Amino acid sequence: MFKNISIIGPGLIGASVAMAISKSSLADQVKVWARSEASREKCKRQAWADSVHPTIKEAVQGCDLVIICTPVDTIIPLFTEMLPHLNPGTLVTDVGSVKSTICKEALTASKGSKCHFIGAHPMAGSEKAGMEHASATLLKDATCILTPDKESPPELLQMLHQFWEALGMRPFSIEAQAHDALVAQISHLPHIVAASLAASLKGLDPDLFKFSGQGLKDTTRIAGGNPKLWESILSQNSSAILDSIEQFESALSAIKTSLKNQDVAAIHKALEEGQSVRGKIEHSK
Amino acid sequence: MFKNISIIGPGLIGASVAMAISKSSLADQVKVWARSEASREKCKRQAWADSVHPTIKEAVQGCDLVIICTPVDTIIPLFTEMLPHLNPGTLVTDVGSVKSTICKEALTASKGSKCHFIGAHPMAGSEKAGMEHASATLLKDATCILTPDKESPPELLQMLHQFWEALGMRPFSIEAQAHDALVAQISHLPHIVAASLAASLKGLDPDLFKFSGQGLKDTTRIAGGNPKLWESILSQNSSAILDSIEQFESALSAIKTSLKNQDVAAIHKALEEGQSVRGKIEHSK
Repeated sequence: MFKNISIIGPGLIGASVAMAISKSSLADQVKVWARSEASREKCKRQAWADSVHPTIKEAVQGCDLVIICTPVDTIIPLFTEMLPHLNPGTLVTDVGSVKSTICKEALTASKGSKCHFIGAHPMAGSEKAGMEHASATLLKDATCILTPDKESPPELLQMLHQFWEALGMRPFSIEAQAHDALVAQISHLPHIVAASLAASLKGLDPDLFKFSGQGLKDTTRIAGGNPKLWESILSQNSSAILDSIEQFESALSAIKTSLKNQDVAAIHKALEEGQSVRGKIEHSK
Repeated sequence: MFKNISIIGPGLIGASVAMAISKSSLADQVKVWARSEASREKCKRQAWADSVHPTIKEAVQGCDLVIICTPVDTIIPLFTEMLPHLNPGTLVTDVGSVKSTICKEALTASKGSKCHFIGAHPMAGSEKAGMEHASATLLKDATCILTPDKESPPELLQMLHQFWEALGMRPFSIEAQAHDALVAQISHLPHIVAASLAASLKGLDPDLFKFSGQGLKDTTRIAGGNPKLWESILSQNSSAILDSIEQFESALSAIKTSLKNQDVAAIHKALEEGQSVRGKIEHSK
């Protein structure tokens, strides 16, 4: 499929992808680029990294697949930096959580280069960041959304599908803009809701959290995510997110009004609506 | 400690309590009352039920501890019904998720009866209701809040503490009103937020939920709770809940404004606040 793969940024997702490639012997060679020396030193001790490089140029040379696994605001700068050093026909992909802006800018940047960028978003992750939380099983059975454009060569798209499938993921192709509208609702809104819920309890004596059950823990889990990563994701998708926040506010407002009016039937109706959608989320696959 | 214990309502919590009593041989006898015949038939096949009764009178006769494990709006009617049939000195407790109204009304109802009501709220549960999801381990290491009043006999309160402790729980006593203000924030608000989040996605093609990661699943889990149970809980605690919704709305509004303004520093600050509180929730015990 691909012989030489370059992993740019061995964080939680990048290292998990490298582990999964290594575990299934998908490539002859995995080359890794990490920005910090400390991170490069850590990579050198990993069985999944065949070589570790301090420059983008070295890290991508001779590769037929490059996977950019860095925060979303660094993807285009890194792609632009690597372009002059890629072999013709090289496929570049990423693992960013937003796609419209990145894919549009990548298309513009790669014009005339004979290299191709097809965006990807493995829907796997954790509120715990970094290589130390990575594992090949993180990707297992999770969805991976690919966002090709009209100029994506069908054979490269097919190879990319097969690649993520070989790592145990379930790939689907949709348009970048449809992806962003969808993740605004199923990923970015839940993140904002969890963060707001946690933040709204800042006035509470932390000692009282010992009284909480699993409900509060589950509902706020993703608020533990790295603010530095999420600020870029959210700001790149703000318009779709603002729409989804409005839908949320309208659902919240219905419960609030019914509580104010002590309208038990209306409280019931609102809860039932939530329960019904939750059932669909629970049983989706 | 207690010789004859009556479990009124063998649902998720009632049956779990009965199982834990039976497992640790805490009582000579566990008597069970269930409203429906189907439920009584199921109980008769359980090792943790020594006898099963169709009337409250029979179920509480000769008991020194009665635990009312039914929905919150039925606790006072059942307590009033059982009062004439209780031995003097009998302790009655419950497992309701709201306490102020129940404890106040129980105090009024029991005046002159020589029986005592001390409210309890085991902070254990699941979005799955019913006896079939019950287990003795559900209670293990979870908090149980007791809400005695000024007239609660200290020796009975102590026995009730020891009882929940013997079931593996961690009991704490606080005032009923403080309990309600606290659970509005750490339990009822999360429930409303999860329900609103799920409900806000009702317009989405359910087939698209397969693209969601664990984040949406965790954040909406408790929205699966039974609307019938929750409508009473929420409506009995509406004033404290409305306060906590306002705090939540103010946190959400901060993120919304920062997204509108594309103010990345402000997005970061809001997410960091959420992350910081989440850390305290995660590490609380």
